[in-house]
Amino acid sequence: MAKKKDTTKQPNMENLQRFAAAQAIVCDLDGTLYLEDGPIQGALQFLDKVISSHRQLYYFTNNTSISRQRWLGKLHELGFPVKNHQLITSADCADAYLKRNDLYPRIYLVGNRDLQQDFEERGFRCLTEDEALSHDPYAVVLGFDTELTYEKIYTCYQLLIKGIPYIATHPDILCPVTHTTFKPDVGSFIALFETACGRRPIVVGKPTREAVRFICEKSHLPVSLIAFIGDRLYTDIQMAVESGMISVLVLSGETTSALLASSSLKPELVVDSVADLTTIL
Amino acid sequence: MAKKKDTTKQPNMENLQRFAAAQAIVCDLDGTLYLEDGPIQGALQFLDKVISSHRQLYYFTNNTSISRQRWLGKLHELGFPVKNHQLITSADCADAYLKRNDLYPRIYLVGNRDLQQDFEERGFRCLTEDEALSHDPYAVVLGFDTELTYEKIYTCYQLLIKGIPYIATHPDILCPVTHTTFKPDVGSFIALFETACGRRPIVVGKPTREAVRFICEKSHLPVSLIAFIGDRLYTDIQMAVESGMISVLVLSGETTSALLASSSLKPELVVDSVADLTTIL
Repeated sequence: MAKKKDTTKQPNMENLQRFAAAQAIVCDLDGTLYLEDGPIQGALQFLDKVISSHRQLYYFTNNTSISRQRWLGKLHELGFPVKNHQLITSADCADAYLKRNDLYPRIYLVGNRDLQQDFEERGFRCLTEDEALSHDPYAVVLGFDTELTYEKIYTCYQLLIKGIPYIATHPDILCPVTHTTFKPDVGSFIALFETACGRRPIVVGKPTREAVRFICEKSHLPVSLIAFIGDRLYTDIQMAVESGMISVLVLSGETTSALLASSSLKPELVVDSVADLTTIL
Repeated sequence: MAKKKDTTKQPNMENLQRFAAAQAIVCDLDGTLYLEDGPIQGALQFLDKVISSHRQLYYFTNNTSISRQRWLGKLHELGFPVKNHQLITSADCADAYLKRNDLYPRIYLVGNRDLQQDFEERGFRCLTEDEALSHDPYAVVLGFDTELTYEKIYTCYQLLIKGIPYIATHPDILCPVTHTTFKPDVGSFIALFETACGRRPIVVGKPTREAVRFICEKSHLPVSLIAFIGDRLYTDIQMAVESGMISVLVLSGETTSALLASSSLKPELVVDSVADLTTIL
């Protein structure tokens, strides 16, 4: 099929001006700033421009299968300018939610060793299966767990039917492994437990209000001065559009022009990649 | 709430006669013939009566977390008269379906060691995760797996998106551990994969047509001469009612009179336990 001219990529002046006025830029990572073979062309220049223009810069990922420390290492390796406070993961949103709601420090976490270490470093105590079944945790936290076992599923189910508060770090159904392969993520496990006991968690991370709240509190800015740049319609763009952030879709990752055309979500700016945004700032 | 007189337990003569005319009696196990503290009172006498009346006797379970050999051992321990051919598990239905549809012998089985051994004894070759990902199996079989890992889930997902035929041994969402506690069963995992990739399996075992077909072929009888006795409305009784078998609900297990009253499923006979059936045969 011949590629049709994509009219959605013709931004109006007002949207361009809104983006140029943003005081914080929040970027998704995979598909937005890098692909499996390295940084997206022009991404480094874009990030440098954000910093040199004295705007706040944040990196936001829902992928909690690797710890904050490993994320920071990965971003350094890619050559991205990043300090600890600039990285936001869905575990940060869960941390904030749990502490704000006094669901702290004893939790039962469905998550791999990296994520457990992450929560322990935040002051949480992650109970073992035996501990969780004998001494009720304050919350069950469903995170991305590439070391999932039936024992963990059984324990989680037993706690859920007891009515323990139940939080999921993010709603993604699949997590990209490469740009053509995926693996089941937290959203798939939410479906398992919903079927088993009828409960759905309070979900944090993109695209929830909890994530928006987290970004606003961190940046001390109203949504109207925050731009969110991402490649996924139903996490990145949905959150930005629904919250009133400045929504920027890049076509360098998951979303194709055809997928965008068939979606009801209409981002304010659509660009081939973040490189196209450098001159606007 | 005062217990209302349960009018559903007043059988009409026609249903009693239909049951008395049954040439095969198929019994569910847990909740129907035994509870955690042993055989249900009168169950042994009932089974002896079935045998002495020269009717065919079968035991049917969807629980494939233990092998046929262990099931036989357990039934012997309980004192039940049982020969190998009298035990039907949902793995038998899967076996028959797979062989009838030329999905044999290379399968990827999501199941614990007991179930793997069971399928190996039937002549199947259960591929490892690495083998299954590099050499397509003829089918993915989702069974009850109390040794489930994320690696198995990942492998199953990768095969499902390839379009490999997909069979589940049974649809139960929960499996009883005791009579007040349960654990997530195959039906819960079906929901996980349906969310991850939109596929639902061909389900065998109770209450499916495959199970009915299996019982009819094994007994060489039409459904009208087969009585199915069970304690679960949405597996045992649903199958019997929908297929035209003689449906007998026992109130010794999961189903209470209140639950029965609120259900649209109306078994032909409702009794407190199998003991009440001895005199009818």
